[in-house]
Amino acid sequence: MTETVSAYLELERRFARLATINDALGILDWDSQTMMPAGAADGRAGQIATLRLVAHDLLTAPDMADLLAAAAAEPDLDDWRRANVREMRHGWLHATAVPSALVEASSRAVSSCEMVWRSARPANDFPALLPSLAEVLSLQREIAAAKAAAFGCSPYEALLDAFEPGARMPTIDPLFDRLAAVLPGFLERVQARQAELPAPRPLPGPFPVAAQRALGEKLMRAVGFDFNRGRLDVSLHPFCGGATNDIRLTTRYDEADFTRSLMGVLHESGHALYEQGRPAAWLNQPVGMARGMALHESQSLIVEMQAARSRPFLEFLAPLAREAFGGQGAAWDATNLHRHYTRVEAGFIRVDADEVTYPAHVILRTRLERAMIAGDLGLRDLPGAWNQGMRELLGVTPPDDRRGCLQDIHWPSGGWGYFPTYTLGAAIAAQLFDTARRAQSEVAPGLARGDFSPLVGWLRAHVHGKGCLLATDALLTRATGRPLDPDVYLRHLERRYLDGE
Amino acid sequence: MTETVSAYLELERRFARLATINDALGILDWDSQTMMPAGAADGRAGQIATLRLVAHDLLTAPDMADLLAAAAAEPDLDDWRRANVREMRHGWLHATAVPSALVEASSRAVSSCEMVWRSARPANDFPALLPSLAEVLSLQREIAAAKAAAFGCSPYEALLDAFEPGARMPTIDPLFDRLAAVLPGFLERVQARQAELPAPRPLPGPFPVAAQRALGEKLMRAVGFDFNRGRLDVSLHPFCGGATNDIRLTTRYDEADFTRSLMGVLHESGHALYEQGRPAAWLNQPVGMARGMALHESQSLIVEMQAARSRPFLEFLAPLAREAFGGQGAAWDATNLHRHYTRVEAGFIRVDADEVTYPAHVILRTRLERAMIAGDLGLRDLPGAWNQGMRELLGVTPPDDRRGCLQDIHWPSGGWGYFPTYTLGAAIAAQLFDTARRAQSEVAPGLARGDFSPLVGWLRAHVHGKGCLLATDALLTRATGRPLDPDVYLRHLERRYLDGE
Repeated sequence: MTETVSAYLELERRFARLATINDALGILDWDSQTMMPAGAADGRAGQIATLRLVAHDLLTAPDMADLLAAAAAEPDLDDWRRANVREMRHGWLHATAVPSALVEASSRAVSSCEMVWRSARPANDFPALLPSLAEVLSLQREIAAAKAAAFGCSPYEALLDAFEPGARMPTIDPLFDRLAAVLPGFLERVQARQAELPAPRPLPGPFPVAAQRALGEKLMRAVGFDFNRGRLDVSLHPFCGGATNDIRLTTRYDEADFTRSLMGVLHESGHALYEQGRPAAWLNQPVGMARGMALHESQSLIVEMQAARSRPFLEFLAPLAREAFGGQGAAWDATNLHRHYTRVEAGFIRVDADEVTYPAHVILRTRLERAMIAGDLGLRDLPGAWNQGMRELLGVTPPDDRRGCLQDIHWPSGGWGYFPTYTLGAAIAAQLFDTARRAQSEVAPGLARGDFSPLVGWLRAHVHGKGCLLATDALLTRATGRPLDPDVYLRHLERRYLDGE
Repeated sequence: MTETVSAYLELERRFARLATINDALGILDWDSQTMMPAGAADGRAGQIATLRLVAHDLLTAPDMADLLAAAAAEPDLDDWRRANVREMRHGWLHATAVPSALVEASSRAVSSCEMVWRSARPANDFPALLPSLAEVLSLQREIAAAKAAAFGCSPYEALLDAFEPGARMPTIDPLFDRLAAVLPGFLERVQARQAELPAPRPLPGPFPVAAQRALGEKLMRAVGFDFNRGRLDVSLHPFCGGATNDIRLTTRYDEADFTRSLMGVLHESGHALYEQGRPAAWLNQPVGMARGMALHESQSLIVEMQAARSRPFLEFLAPLAREAFGGQGAAWDATNLHRHYTRVEAGFIRVDADEVTYPAHVILRTRLERAMIAGDLGLRDLPGAWNQGMRELLGVTPPDDRRGCLQDIHWPSGGWGYFPTYTLGAAIAAQLFDTARRAQSEVAPGLARGDFSPLVGWLRAHVHGKGCLLATDALLTRATGRPLDPDVYLRHLERRYLDGE
């Protein structure tokens, strides 16, 4: 059996090299968003394209199919190694399902469309975007068809699968349909209740950047972020990136409002905990990677939405914030902070949306992109369909495309199939947190004293430490005792926004 | 002739890719010295090793010899392309002259020896370093022998050639012998003169980092550094690195003394000007790279030693520094600043040495490493030979090896043959600056008003814009009308340190 054993070991060696190149790419990407001078942009694009090509060549080497087949036939592999081969094959299939000419054409179309979008959005000029977006969409449909054949699923699912492997519409549809049915009425009830309560007292600034950064880093330490293996910096669009054992969060500071950046730091810290908690023995192998973007988002939302916006944690946070900014008076009470952090309002912009209205933004985009990939909705009809959807789901009509279908970079940048992961992640977060709280009695009291370790300990054991050993559905079922259950998520929303917990 | 034309074009394509990978490596290396959290060090070493291997595989591809031969035979190549093929071949010869098993063994020995050195130096423990340094030296001697055969030069020259292509001892020996003969007596005269003058008045701090950084950036702008294609950051060991169109300088701040960091920033800015002034049409080709480390050092020393420590420039700097730090009194006069910046003292540490004593440190190291590579000096005898050389050249005896043969990282890290480039660079700087000042009458008056553009304009035309088109000797002869002339350098030292210019 030497032959098959060596096939597996050869694959481990190659995928370790691939992970190393991807780590280098992670640092170069972080740098381009945080440190890079503007004049270096073209050169950096070339560096990233070159390393991606090196990685792609490694993954699609001519003997890869044979190696994967030989490794899969090897009888002595344990569960981790077997899952590793499965994940290798999954990544290889995504890389080889699409002809390289199509990949290149799409990459060029996306670069060009992103550039058009950067001026079309502020100019509120959808017609200017239309031709290049049509090109992107047309190529995405070809890619979706090619991958659908390879994965045996629908074209839209094939796109989604690149972001959350194994996610399929029979899981998503019941969740999204239920939310779409329930949330409009729920929103009305929340707003009625909110109208009866005092409005949040304004928090008077300015809030110096240095004080915001110090408070953010203090909370990152409370959450369990390991600064020996990571950093916090500033970028225009906050993200969690970097490399293995080198996790780099970013935020953006507004000296007139500390609340957004602070919660943003906690959100990205949730992503970071997942990355810093991946299984140490498999860090450079596919089976040791984070499972997918939905589960990733669940980890950021557990920290931000489930834990940090909870009343017990805000009781802990309020005096820290008061001290950090020299705050005085009732505006700095936990109750007022809670009102700020649970304020609900139907708005036009997804990234500004609160926990209650966010799913509507996602459901709308999911419906629209699915219809466009299926060929049931043409781009010319997108603005109208968008505005109609906003009216139905949120009761508001965007005054222009800038605050409508032009607002997100996802479609111009080729990220079709990504949107559902936000709300999948929110529902998974609610279910995981609900179980953690019941299973580990110290979770809630811990939050009240700024101690996340009981929560993070549970997540390490049931999520972070699993890497890609299990599919998302299986992981969730093992961790919580049942598959994804929209009711848990809805109960969380009710408790927070109707019961004021 | 299609065949040979396509060989040249194929080489351009491959070397562009190589340059892109080296640019990525430049950013990763910069990051590891400025931003990287400690826990990421192992992973980063892996990323760098992997990308170096990718670059090495590209450079040593089996068909490279044929491509180079075919391209060299192509009759229609212009001067730049012909020089480009020559430089390609030179890089390829360095990469292929040494068997890869030897490269790997040396790389491992160096990693291990560097680690030992990091603790042996502070512990003043040369015997602890000896075994791993002996391994490094033994492998360096093998490498030198292999390259000597490939390049048709002596083993020591073959090592030097990797840092300054084409540099040979018949150029270096007359310079170093002359300096070794003249400088001890010269030093005595300088010290005698210094003793007659008032000691520099102390500059009272503290000097806040923010004010030091602002002043440093102001001077970088004056010098002509393009911040749209570069940055200034902090690292333990200052350097100029980064990538094409993305030049990254570093410095280190001491709040008790601004003078070192400020001059360090100007030094690195000289390196940066060279990189930012490379020929635009050949940026990603071997012929468009900086010529070598001696010429590179000459560019940093033209800015730091020739221009910025000159009296006219210090007249410009003094009021800026006074304003930046709220300085008062005669200590902030240009005359006093000049006394600080031209203070001469025979010390033990090379990196702390002034312009007059620095060559002695370099000559000593060059003699010792040349003897060790030749097998004429054993490592056990190194501490004694070091201390004897210090006495002869500088009249001081290091009290311990920490301040003696343990002080530099070059030998543990495999940088044998590097040292001569420092003093070669200093002599070239003096000769280039002397010519620039005569050829372009605005150079000296420009410095007096903080305007480096006449100087930089001359350097762009005669050095930076040439890339690797010419060999260093030829470039210097074309630019100054004669080969390297130690007298020009010595006259510069006399004027500054004896005549007080």
